[in-house]
Amino acid sequence: MRRLPERGLYGEKDIHAVLDAAPFCHIAHLVDAQPVCTPTLHWRIGDRVYWHGSVASRMLRHAAGARVCLTATIFDGWVLARSAFNHSANYRAVMCFGEPEIIEDDARKAELLEVFTEQRFPGRWAQLRPVTPKELRATTILTMPLDLASAKVRSGAPDDPPRDCSWPVWAGVIPVRSKALRAEIATGVPAGVKPPKRSGR
Amino acid sequence: MRRLPERGLYGEKDIHAVLDAAPFCHIAHLVDAQPVCTPTLHWRIGDRVYWHGSVASRMLRHAAGARVCLTATIFDGWVLARSAFNHSANYRAVMCFGEPEIIEDDARKAELLEVFTEQRFPGRWAQLRPVTPKELRATTILTMPLDLASAKVRSGAPDDPPRDCSWPVWAGVIPVRSKALRAEIATGVPAGVKPPKRSGR
Repeated sequence: MRRLPERGLYGEKDIHAVLDAAPFCHIAHLVDAQPVCTPTLHWRIGDRVYWHGSVASRMLRHAAGARVCLTATIFDGWVLARSAFNHSANYRAVMCFGEPEIIEDDARKAELLEVFTEQRFPGRWAQLRPVTPKELRATTILTMPLDLASAKVRSGAPDDPPRDCSWPVWAGVIPVRSKALRAEIATGVPAGVKPPKRSGR
Repeated sequence: MRRLPERGLYGEKDIHAVLDAAPFCHIAHLVDAQPVCTPTLHWRIGDRVYWHGSVASRMLRHAAGARVCLTATIFDGWVLARSAFNHSANYRAVMCFGEPEIIEDDARKAELLEVFTEQRFPGRWAQLRPVTPKELRATTILTMPLDLASAKVRSGAPDDPPRDCSWPVWAGVIPVRSKALRAEIATGVPAGVKPPKRSGR
């Protein structure tokens, strides 16, 4: 794994923080020699990452036991330099390489889905209509360890060389942030039911 | 290319709209039989997509002439159902398959970078310190047509079955939006220089 040294972060804490801050990731996997890049929700517990889907999912079937790359990226803003060449983006990205395995045990699957839910909406799992054995059988969960992962971060001002800095053009950063808006209640929710708590993820 | 029929959109307009709304994408490509998933900025002109980087980039070198999958995804929010099983995410995603080619001509490269810049910051290209031949030679631009592309969109309320709808838990959507914050000027920008115009992209 080579990377731009000035953008490399190697710490486990950095890798965990980016994975936890990204609401979803993309997974590169092979289907009949064709690379396929699929967006999916993921979650992290300790030093492993998890993702899930329908047992009918072609993506999950092809990924299990094969080499994949899971990449989670957060776009933090536009970096406007004095030259087109030095324009950039601020971002945080984690790449994780591995050979995912399928979680087979239904009780373990229920535990993992509970953590996934609770990490985002604390207290929600106990309020939900309980998961059924049929639903667990219809759900595939994949996991892989984070032992082959790396983080890359670009932050801060543009990197203009000194000779460009007097050029009369605006330069700087336009930060971009993701923001949750007001929750939109579904039809039929009984009166008096409270909206979910958010963890900030 | 199989996909969930209820989430499939096949129109060229839908594919273009998602590519234009996403600030960046992920590209799945092979490096020595290992799938790699790399985030990068992209832009679209007509029925082609473009991305770029350093001539030293391993990603661009490995992607040229090989099969890749470029996926651009916009996360639109959390979908909270009455059961864990029916929880979901609202999103818009486009997957584009192809074998990218390198743009060799420097004048053409300059034109393409100008469009990339102007699509996001109208009027900015003419204000910038002009691009040099050396910078153009140091920049690789890849392109592929959008003739093998598909869009998937999930929007709206949770899909709870009628028997779940009286369960006493909050259900609905928490929309998530990307928002540009106030621009942060770099040090050294001459007084009186105006901040860039935004196109909304």
